[in-house]
Amino acid sequence: MSKKIPVGILGATGAVGQNYIYLLQNHPWFEVTYVAASPRSAGKAYRDVVQTRWLLGANIPEAVADLVIEDANNPDTAIGKCRFVFSAIELESKDAIRDLENAYAERGIPVVSNASAHRWTDNVPVIIPEINPEHIAVIDAQKKAHGWDTGFVAVKPNCSVQSYVAPLWALMKAGYEIKRMIVTTMQAVSGAGYPGVPSLDMIDNVVPFIGGEEEKSEQEPLKIFGSVVDGKIVNADGPIVAAHCNRVAVINGHTACVSLEFGEKKPSLEEIERIWTEFRGLPQELDLPFAPRQPIIVRHEQNRPQPRRDRDEDKGMAVSVGRLRKCPVFDIRFVGLSHNTVRGAAGGGILNAELLKSKGYIS
Amino acid sequence: MSKKIPVGILGATGAVGQNYIYLLQNHPWFEVTYVAASPRSAGKAYRDVVQTRWLLGANIPEAVADLVIEDANNPDTAIGKCRFVFSAIELESKDAIRDLENAYAERGIPVVSNASAHRWTDNVPVIIPEINPEHIAVIDAQKKAHGWDTGFVAVKPNCSVQSYVAPLWALMKAGYEIKRMIVTTMQAVSGAGYPGVPSLDMIDNVVPFIGGEEEKSEQEPLKIFGSVVDGKIVNADGPIVAAHCNRVAVINGHTACVSLEFGEKKPSLEEIERIWTEFRGLPQELDLPFAPRQPIIVRHEQNRPQPRRDRDEDKGMAVSVGRLRKCPVFDIRFVGLSHNTVRGAAGGGILNAELLKSKGYIS
Amino acid sequence: MSKKIPVGILGATGAVGQNYIYLLQNHPWFEVTYVAASPRSAGKAYRDVVQTRWLLGANIPEAVADLVIEDANNPDTAIGKCRFVFSAIELESKDAIRDLENAYAERGIPVVSNASAHRWTDNVPVIIPEINPEHIAVIDAQKKAHGWDTGFVAVKPNCSVQSYVAPLWALMKAGYEIKRMIVTTMQAVSGAGYPGVPSLDMIDNVVPFIGGEEEKSEQEPLKIFGSVVDGKIVNADGPIVAAHCNRVAVINGHTACVSLEFGEKKPSLEEIERIWTEFRGLPQELDLPFAPRQPIIVRHEQNRPQPRRDRDEDKGMAVSVGRLRKCPVFDIRFVGLSHNTVRGAAGGGILNAELLKSKGYIS
Amino acid sequence: MSKKIPVGILGATGAVGQNYIYLLQNHPWFEVTYVAASPRSAGKAYRDVVQTRWLLGANIPEAVADLVIEDANNPDTAIGKCRFVFSAIELESKDAIRDLENAYAERGIPVVSNASAHRWTDNVPVIIPEINPEHIAVIDAQKKAHGWDTGFVAVKPNCSVQSYVAPLWALMKAGYEIKRMIVTTMQAVSGAGYPGVPSLDMIDNVVPFIGGEEEKSEQEPLKIFGSVVDGKIVNADGPIVAAHCNRVAVINGHTACVSLEFGEKKPSLEEIERIWTEFRGLPQELDLPFAPRQPIIVRHEQNRPQPRRDRDEDKGMAVSVGRLRKCPVFDIRFVGLSHNTVRGAAGGGILNAELLKSKGYIS
Repeated sequence: MSKKIPVGILGATGAVGQNYIYLLQNHPWFEVTYVAASPRSAGKAYRDVVQTRWLLGANIPEAVADLVIEDANNPDTAIGKCRFVFSAIELESKDAIRDLENAYAERGIPVVSNASAHRWTDNVPVIIPEINPEHIAVIDAQKKAHGWDTGFVAVKPNCSVQSYVAPLWALMKAGYEIKRMIVTTMQAVSGAGYPGVPSLDMIDNVVPFIGGEEEKSEQEPLKIFGSVVDGKIVNADGPIVAAHCNRVAVINGHTACVSLEFGEKKPSLEEIERIWTEFRGLPQELDLPFAPRQPIIVRHEQNRPQPRRDRDEDKGMAVSVGRLRKCPVFDIRFVGLSHNTVRGAAGGGILNAELLKSKGYIS
Repeated sequence: MSKKIPVGILGATGAVGQNYIYLLQNHPWFEVTYVAASPRSAGKAYRDVVQTRWLLGANIPEAVADLVIEDANNPDTAIGKCRFVFSAIELESKDAIRDLENAYAERGIPVVSNASAHRWTDNVPVIIPEINPEHIAVIDAQKKAHGWDTGFVAVKPNCSVQSYVAPLWALMKAGYEIKRMIVTTMQAVSGAGYPGVPSLDMIDNVVPFIGGEEEKSEQEPLKIFGSVVDGKIVNADGPIVAAHCNRVAVINGHTACVSLEFGEKKPSLEEIERIWTEFRGLPQELDLPFAPRQPIIVRHEQNRPQPRRDRDEDKGMAVSVGRLRKCPVFDIRFVGLSHNTVRGAAGGGILNAELLKSKGYIS
Repeated sequence: MSKKIPVGILGATGAVGQNYIYLLQNHPWFEVTYVAASPRSAGKAYRDVVQTRWLLGANIPEAVADLVIEDANNPDTAIGKCRFVFSAIELESKDAIRDLENAYAERGIPVVSNASAHRWTDNVPVIIPEINPEHIAVIDAQKKAHGWDTGFVAVKPNCSVQSYVAPLWALMKAGYEIKRMIVTTMQAVSGAGYPGVPSLDMIDNVVPFIGGEEEKSEQEPLKIFGSVVDGKIVNADGPIVAAHCNRVAVINGHTACVSLEFGEKKPSLEEIERIWTEFRGLPQELDLPFAPRQPIIVRHEQNRPQPRRDRDEDKGMAVSVGRLRKCPVFDIRFVGLSHNTVRGAAGGGILNAELLKSKGYIS
Repeated sequence: MSKKIPVGILGATGAVGQNYIYLLQNHPWFEVTYVAASPRSAGKAYRDVVQTRWLLGANIPEAVADLVIEDANNPDTAIGKCRFVFSAIELESKDAIRDLENAYAERGIPVVSNASAHRWTDNVPVIIPEINPEHIAVIDAQKKAHGWDTGFVAVKPNCSVQSYVAPLWALMKAGYEIKRMIVTTMQAVSGAGYPGVPSLDMIDNVVPFIGGEEEKSEQEPLKIFGSVVDGKIVNADGPIVAAHCNRVAVINGHTACVSLEFGEKKPSLEEIERIWTEFRGLPQELDLPFAPRQPIIVRHEQNRPQPRRDRDEDKGMAVSVGRLRKCPVFDIRFVGLSHNTVRGAAGGGILNAELLKSKGYIS
């Protein structure tokens, strides 16, 4: 009999939910045993609801295909079926999502969330395990504030920031202040879920707008780079980020063109490349199953990284950077790329859960 | 009998050459009477060489289809056949293009060029008629330096700059200095000609590099914004531009995401919009055939401009801007869009020729 | 004051409705004066509802943008506002559409429909004006059966058949029986409306299925080729058609690969080409405004017709055929192409209305 | 030290050559030790020539990246470096390819070819190991005719046939004659190599023609289904095939819409599905490394198979079929799909080599 930790997926029929199910096949620690979605899917076999809209290769993983979908609005259905949940739920409002995620936590079920609802709750950590694993310390204060025992909520940031925050952080960690940065993203359609972006908007076209995405891209790094003070995350002061977010005709992989300005101390291009190549974080130290061996891969070809060629590096968990060069306006510029549904969504959520397990928050 | 000015096309079989032929159909002033290309096409009917690679709708314009292609390397073939030429020639080196364009000019045939070879020749004007029509004054010095009588060379800038230089200029003309700017372009595949970008590089992909394009995007505005001093163009000091140029899966239309910083004096968003909307230049004053009625169109939808929806505005000669908003790093940011093969290539060349004719340089 | 016939659009906010509005700009006979859609849009300005989802170039035609949308479910709103309507309505069931179209007709308002609901009503003609204009004779019986005075319903066939029925008919009219035919279509995403096909299904993909499309492609030609008997259309016996319908990453233009078998009498390839090239119908005779001068254009390039190059021939109303050659299984094979939202939808509807006006059914 | 059989790749820098190198990573029997290409690449490291045009994920396999490219026109360079070669060579003529492949064979080096040059040489087998493994018997006659000792040439068929020949064969093997068939293919751009199809031809477009492809699609099945008689392959009499071949905007995966007519004996749809699902061949019996466990996968979703979802089934070696249904013109119709660069090119070649090794022709 399996010794794996049983895990649930909230929003299991959507695009991100499907990604969790796809990526958790053969996970050494976790096993999907509970799938929840909207009431209209509840009571049906997962296979029957998702078959004709399964997005990831030919077949739904067998072990999940026959699970009966539960009503995600009724957290009691999870009791006894799983020991924590990944939340990829979509509801009519952020308040509704917050309430629902809290309801699971209240029942003793930790929630590792992909949703943006709780990202600005000050005792909920927004985690990228290579960058701010110490933020999980606020979970204790969070539990205490709510009177929760084992349950809690931890979240991950928006997919759009993943192509540049790790490269920024590596430089900051090496002692280089980053004052300002302008980033233009070219984001894949999978980021909008399914059905998502109409093909009439994407064939022979670019859409230079994604609702709410620029605000997230500018503000979330400040919380990620923040500090734990008295059981809360206090945001960092910088860097100041200006983001231009675009949707392009790419299935997976967000590309970011970045120009940035350092503080007084400015590294050389050679030093930057060395810092990025050698950068490692706690997931690498702990050798977590979903940790990329090398979180930042530096490419030297003049026309890389490219989404189709580079997104799958190290199972989609590595960030590729290239075209590192001087910027005539700021100090340097480069192109960053990450797989938005793996590193930027389900894969990042799984790495968060692995970190939380290794620190005893999930068991 | 036609009273139109007979014109030739150098590089008539390539993508830009085809665009000239397409756009010059029914032109009120000009008529294509001479088509020149590489020696291996010379002596054949235009139709026979281009039929299976014609890019612009179903059919080659009848009046050109039966012309016999001349050898572009032999400028004598143009004598008596046309009174000026559009150059869209591609050769093994910039030196070769410069020499060839000079050879036509030497034979008394003005050259209105799309090629980059002569853009940094200081007595050759790089013209956008709405911005710097007075630069054509250097043509007199150019003629004198070479001892040419009626012949000369005038050029247009790279297609990538067209989505932002007119909006910049309108603000500069209104008295607002622009100090710095960071621009990321998402450029159409037609900019690379035919066969150009392989579909294996564009389907489900972005290529974050276009050879030579960032340098052109950064430096050419300085010449366009420069002044005529002693028969030469002296470059402007600013703005400082940093460009990130990308190729995306779009047929026509270059999109540019711009963040810019003004000097001391900073216009409000309302004033910027008014300046752009009211902006007019000499082509509008002269009512040139290819002049857009309104060179800059401001859009208010949150998700515009988009290449497929906006590129054809005013026959492809207007620049569309949208998403004008504050920039957290610089002062403002916006999205600009222009049709790269019309405003950015053949259409821009035709407008240059119209300006030159109206000023007596072509007759 | 305009002498044009005022016309309404049912389903004016959808993709086909937008196409009607786009194509009717500057129509010499008709003028859009009434736009109707679902109750939730009713009472709002057309511009406000459609602005961010307008599909056809940059701007909504000014004359329509300020019209207030009426509730399409209340046909009384049309009385006095228009003298006939184009129906592009989408409702929950075909019965509901039939009832609604009848309700307009009952109020004296002719309905020229794009919807499939009435295509199998035996006294409703399915018209392609070049093929079966005499079918409009059943309108008299239809009016009589319902007790209608000026109102009636006439429809057009599905977009998928338009790439091959005119070429078939030209051969049949020339005396060649067509016994059987196998056709594979590669259909544009605009055929599915907006939002329509998700880009996650179309980038780097083909979807080999379109709901209901194969049945329509096989059966509708039999009604089109049928005869008027006692005020009803009696279907033709053949040809027997087998259709494979696919969705491909094309914005506009349905491509059809056809293999067909003649009866005893078999034309040569040369004769077929002559028949197609010379084919003309009643719209050409009457010189109707939307009639293509040459309904069938034969191409000789080995790689044509192609959607992007050929769909716009003669304002999108001509069918292009190419690759006419022997078929090792049947007699001949060829590729047909038509613009699905022009000839196959709104343009075809307008041509129907022009025919009906010229025959006195609309005035 | 490795005990694997050293193998060479002719045309190693091209798209098919790259696929061989990609798929042979970690192959249990074979190891790439020799890479040959055109004289202008000879003498350079593989990495240096291919780096910026590597098509398969981020990185060139390390073991091959440092190999020095040899001149493929000089077969002597292979002696001692490999024990057989995969040929993916492209030369100016089929005669040149035949001569070159023979030259390798003459030097004792078996050639397992992807090229079409030798497909109609009567003592060269065109092998699909699940269908006609007994055809390798003609190799003995081939060797004898040339006086070759260990060397020989064996080839695989064109990629376009792979989406339907296995399903056809399974039915023929079960005793059902197939008389006639009409197939329309929608083929991926990777089939044209690199740079291959220009993106100006594929974005928002279909190209209804691929040079030579229809002839191959119609004729090669007859050799594959043929018999060995006196050391030569004698073609089968049927089925008669008519093919319409199209290029669509898909990276990998050829889709085929098939209508077919049986002889007197006609299986039910249920029986066909059973035959396909249970079909196994010699590669499955021998458990060859690249053999798919189930060569034909039957799908039941109404909108499948689709290239992006189904092409990678069983490492890209399985053929997926779906939409099996009655045909109103012939007996049945269905959609077939195979990965054109895996099953249809390099993967198919590797399976051929595995068969030849298991039968003692390669050692």
